[in-house]
Amino acid sequence: MNAFRSIEFLDEGIVRMLDQRKLPHETIYNDYLTYEEVAQAIQDMVIRGAPAIGAAAAYGMALTAHNTGCETRDALISELATASEALARSRPTAVNLFWALDRMNKRIADPSLGSVSALQKATLAESHAIAKEDVAINKAIGMNALPLIPDKATIIHHCNTGSLATVDYGTALGVIRTAHEDGKKVFALLDETRPRLQGGRLSAYELKEQGIPFKVIVDGASGHFMRTLGVDLCVVGTDRVAANGDVANKIGTYNLAVVAYENGVPFYVAAPTTTIDMATKHGDEIEIEERPASEITHVRECQITPDGVEVGNPAFDVTPTKYITAIITEKGVVYPPFDENLVALMDAD
Amino acid sequence: MNAFRSIEFLDEGIVRMLDQRKLPHETIYNDYLTYEEVAQAIQDMVIRGAPAIGAAAAYGMALTAHNTGCETRDALISELATASEALARSRPTAVNLFWALDRMNKRIADPSLGSVSALQKATLAESHAIAKEDVAINKAIGMNALPLIPDKATIIHHCNTGSLATVDYGTALGVIRTAHEDGKKVFALLDETRPRLQGGRLSAYELKEQGIPFKVIVDGASGHFMRTLGVDLCVVGTDRVAANGDVANKIGTYNLAVVAYENGVPFYVAAPTTTIDMATKHGDEIEIEERPASEITHVRECQITPDGVEVGNPAFDVTPTKYITAIITEKGVVYPPFDENLVALMDAD
Repeated sequence: MNAFRSIEFLDEGIVRMLDQRKLPHETIYNDYLTYEEVAQAIQDMVIRGAPAIGAAAAYGMALTAHNTGCETRDALISELATASEALARSRPTAVNLFWALDRMNKRIADPSLGSVSALQKATLAESHAIAKEDVAINKAIGMNALPLIPDKATIIHHCNTGSLATVDYGTALGVIRTAHEDGKKVFALLDETRPRLQGGRLSAYELKEQGIPFKVIVDGASGHFMRTLGVDLCVVGTDRVAANGDVANKIGTYNLAVVAYENGVPFYVAAPTTTIDMATKHGDEIEIEERPASEITHVRECQITPDGVEVGNPAFDVTPTKYITAIITEKGVVYPPFDENLVALMDAD
Repeated sequence: MNAFRSIEFLDEGIVRMLDQRKLPHETIYNDYLTYEEVAQAIQDMVIRGAPAIGAAAAYGMALTAHNTGCETRDALISELATASEALARSRPTAVNLFWALDRMNKRIADPSLGSVSALQKATLAESHAIAKEDVAINKAIGMNALPLIPDKATIIHHCNTGSLATVDYGTALGVIRTAHEDGKKVFALLDETRPRLQGGRLSAYELKEQGIPFKVIVDGASGHFMRTLGVDLCVVGTDRVAANGDVANKIGTYNLAVVAYENGVPFYVAAPTTTIDMATKHGDEIEIEERPASEITHVRECQITPDGVEVGNPAFDVTPTKYITAIITEKGVVYPPFDENLVALMDAD
């Protein structure tokens, strides 16, 4: 358990999020009272990371029910449908958002929920369950990864996939954390992860708090460290895994994976099964969000580029299966051929 | 010819440099009166780029002679030897620095230069010759590259290799510029090039001035654009080419080259023969400068990382020959096997 919590639901009908745009310099919690505000917070990346976005969407639904002015079940169901649509539009790439909304909508559709009050209780319970399960899933991923981590390991990590990117604990950073807590001598090289610097800001913040030794590096330096320092493995999170095993993740992941492949460095993806999207056959079907130019032209309030230059700012990229050693889920480690083995994993229960 | 000049020698005994640390936000010229000041300016990256560093070192020697208080030839030769040593310590990786100092020292050693005044005239003439030749070399590289550039070409470029990195015109950006001036429809994707953002700051500034269309991208996005947009070629500069063809260049070059290789995108290195170091057999013999942590922890005055985190900040990396399609020099285009073909190139005259 950390000193901070990425997202919480307060009994009085408030969704509280740690504003990750301000970290590590300021620790500010924002309170949200409506689904519109929660959707905007997701879009603005107050909260980010696929599992955390999923939890935020679920809590956005519970919040809508809790604070509703509707007096009938049907009116509230209609309001929740509108909320679900608004939340679904907040960000396109991470499938956890849609998974969480689907799960909430299935719960809401339960005909035995015959009153506003029953819907309020059910949506809150379901969102709490999603949040609680996420923590357990992350810990299981960490345990499943343990046999893959040498007792002394230099590990490259991209973006932020820790407590901040999840409800708590983390996926890929959770793997590093579990290995550290298990007594392995892990040393992390954190890609700073331009443009939003989630590695240099957020992962550095978390690893510092946890006492895990690390260095921050620029994204372009990963191959140099593989060639000269020796790197034992890479581990990253994901926003969506396609049915064939292609992985969408933060921009820069594909470059890292290719360089790891060329250097014979194992490349692992830590993925809750909630991030695996069997309805998307191939990675190139995944919509890649284009983010505002200001993320590249400015760092905090500091302008980098000359006035008026154009930028290309895709928030994610797709890493084809060729470059992926294994996908580590809470249900086990999946190896190639991913198309077959992901079906087997998702069918098992 | 550009509106600006990276370096100039003023007749009254001043080396004037455009302070590239302040671009594109401020256009400030600094004046230097001693070799110590010039060495410090090189170290602090007021001026950067292998050819520009070479010219700066040469002018630092001429400046020493011009402003000397020595009254005898021998005393001045001793002062120039001290100046040469100090300038050689300013940065370790770019071989142009050592090449330019060697050339100056050979000229200084000419026994026919029998007086302080003769040494002053000779060092100034030699440094002017180095500067003038650099411009001609760059233009020849651009012309030699023309047949390699499709009539319509999307080109990824790393760091800054334009007028600012040279005395004028540029090496890899000179290739893009020549193609543009030749009427080819070139579109540049500029790696912003962390940590010092020479792409987002300096290359964007130059291409904007030249009217060449471009977008700035984060370094981690190059592979995504190769996969999704289609990229025709990459072209980069270099700080040192080893005798076997391995290329030292700005950190991030190796990752770009590997990703280009995996995507079948030709990867060209624009290299004046002054950058080819036949005395260094293999790229891994090249000293890689480690730069201050603040380059990663801060962008301009904005802090990114939490207080007190460690960083790894190698300024350069080495790209093995496997990933290099051709090396474009002013004497012609060199293809693999580089070890044989570089010998042939350097022996030809």
